[in-house]
Amino acid sequence: MSKKLLHTPEGVRDIYGKEYAGKLYVERKIHDTITSYGYEDIQTPTFEYFDVFSREIGTTPSKELYKFFDKEGNTLVLRPDFTPSIARCAAKYFMESQESIRFCYLGNTFTNTSNLQGKLKEVTQIGAELVGDDSVEADGEMISLVIEALKNTGLKQFQVSVGQVEYFKGICEEAGLDTETEEQLREYISGKNYFAAQELLAQKEVPKPYSSTLLKAADLFGSIDSLKEARESVHNQRSLSAIERLEAIYRVLKLYGVEEYVSFDLGMLSKYHYYTGIIFKAYTYGVGAPIVKGGRYDTLLRQFGKDAPAIGFAMVVDDVLEAVQYQKAPLPHGMEKKVLTYTAADYVQKLQEAKESRRQGIPTLLVRQ
Amino acid sequence: MSKKLLHTPEGVRDIYGKEYAGKLYVERKIHDTITSYGYEDIQTPTFEYFDVFSREIGTTPSKELYKFFDKEGNTLVLRPDFTPSIARCAAKYFMESQESIRFCYLGNTFTNTSNLQGKLKEVTQIGAELVGDDSVEADGEMISLVIEALKNTGLKQFQVSVGQVEYFKGICEEAGLDTETEEQLREYISGKNYFAAQELLAQKEVPKPYSSTLLKAADLFGSIDSLKEARESVHNQRSLSAIERLEAIYRVLKLYGVEEYVSFDLGMLSKYHYYTGIIFKAYTYGVGAPIVKGGRYDTLLRQFGKDAPAIGFAMVVDDVLEAVQYQKAPLPHGMEKKVLTYTAADYVQKLQEAKESRRQGIPTLLVRQ
Repeated sequence: MSKKLLHTPEGVRDIYGKEYAGKLYVERKIHDTITSYGYEDIQTPTFEYFDVFSREIGTTPSKELYKFFDKEGNTLVLRPDFTPSIARCAAKYFMESQESIRFCYLGNTFTNTSNLQGKLKEVTQIGAELVGDDSVEADGEMISLVIEALKNTGLKQFQVSVGQVEYFKGICEEAGLDTETEEQLREYISGKNYFAAQELLAQKEVPKPYSSTLLKAADLFGSIDSLKEARESVHNQRSLSAIERLEAIYRVLKLYGVEEYVSFDLGMLSKYHYYTGIIFKAYTYGVGAPIVKGGRYDTLLRQFGKDAPAIGFAMVVDDVLEAVQYQKAPLPHGMEKKVLTYTAADYVQKLQEAKESRRQGIPTLLVRQ
Repeated sequence: MSKKLLHTPEGVRDIYGKEYAGKLYVERKIHDTITSYGYEDIQTPTFEYFDVFSREIGTTPSKELYKFFDKEGNTLVLRPDFTPSIARCAAKYFMESQESIRFCYLGNTFTNTSNLQGKLKEVTQIGAELVGDDSVEADGEMISLVIEALKNTGLKQFQVSVGQVEYFKGICEEAGLDTETEEQLREYISGKNYFAAQELLAQKEVPKPYSSTLLKAADLFGSIDSLKEARESVHNQRSLSAIERLEAIYRVLKLYGVEEYVSFDLGMLSKYHYYTGIIFKAYTYGVGAPIVKGGRYDTLLRQFGKDAPAIGFAMVVDDVLEAVQYQKAPLPHGMEKKVLTYTAADYVQKLQEAKESRRQGIPTLLVRQ
């Protein structure tokens, strides 16, 4: 027998026993929270045409996509995330609808990262998408949903950081930055590479007040009070509106009673064009990377021919489980079941006992002694 | 926008709304039945090394596997079914264990069939595997589990056909057929190509009594009474033991109270070597192909270095759903939820109502009027 036969490929794994019981528990708790808000389940194919996850639409570099061909020679891709697929569905099945659409998805996603990064290449993602509602209330609903879902898994210590990309864009516009510089700067700041950002601003001879404001924006985070400081640093309407939006969202979050989990971060910028309004990430002890990523992407659906605003988030169930385990929140101790052993002599009787016990809803194992 | 962007690849699809609610319902009913027997959930990777599904182990022809490469150049395959993966896990994690192992799996499988066949290329499979128990009781447990799972989905009209490949092998052995002829014959009979089978037997000059017995075996199906006739047609011990095993299983199925759903078919032969004892399929109105396939494969785990008997079954959830719909068994009418509409004036009050309603476990949608 080849030794390889027992192994899973690098970056993917088997999960069973107590660990899988924990994963299913976390998954169910998050799922139940999302559906409690009236979001409907949807399932999309595990692979799609390459174009659905292309550079213009997706956020995963082409070299990190698992690609293969169908019998007709089309390039297929294992989905790296769900958002483009859900956007495609919203456009395909609700092209003419003016009503808001709420979807919940759950399934595995695939990224062909380098083995050196040590990351899982197949993970389970769960998330929600709300299409056709650009209101502050929609923003608040989505963030509140994230917080309640995480609380329901048993997690206690976590924070949802909320940013607004329009704040940064407004300053860039006021400073007269060209698109290329703005993109480069956004990438430096989202990568926390402030030194490179500073150098770029100097090199492009961006006037002093703007360059300081941009660098300061990158560093503006904290409670609702940090928004006051942010407001005082700018004069353009676009940035001011961004701050007002965040303050309005905060008022909604107070109504939901989840404001203690929220902080603001105006330096949170995605390196992708994807996001058009608020952007948020949830952080927790025990996992380095954010366990939730989300935001507003009001232009994505246009790629699929439907002009509708949208907001959504995705959680990696495997990461949430890791955080729950780390924080020692209660998880199922594997499967609880009754075990009945039988011999040839008492098989008939034990089988009847097992049937009765199963009828009562108790998982019951019947095994030979 | 490319028109293709809205489409899923041939053979895969989106599922949402009432239809997906039905699929999740059927899935849950089957899953709950399997776990009620004490089977533990396991999740294996969506893709594995090619070798795990190779000709010696799997039942899917190589040209119907979705293949691609990892960054190291290894060939990876989207799983066409679960049995080899579960066998791998049983060997890997329980190599030394003498105890019986019971696993339940649920996930999607992929076969790259020709578009002309019009079959789905991605389906959801659910199934159970019992490793380390070669008893009649284990055979009975597995068939009873299939029947109870199907009943729990609401299906009423279905039959589980049970065969035993040893009956056929016994006659072949007695008739002195060489392996090649036996395999060819098995393929003809499993394909219901009796004319070719007859021609082969004549061409190989198989003596009259055996050739008639073999052709008759292919046609032996029906109630428990059909086993009497089968017994009278043979004299070799191997075939007689096969009949005795089926009779013993029938007694166990009567204890479970599921015998009315069972019939026997000694002409049921898989074209694969996979199966070593009983083999079974469930048929129902509304779906042409069998909705459940299963059987005993006592030599498969040796391929992974563990010498342990095993039995299992797999159901295609999509097919079971189709049968349930066809037989008009009750299914959920999509998601049941409370809808609260708000205006700017009553948002605060409606939000509190929504919170309270969700707290009571009622899925509640909050939408702007």
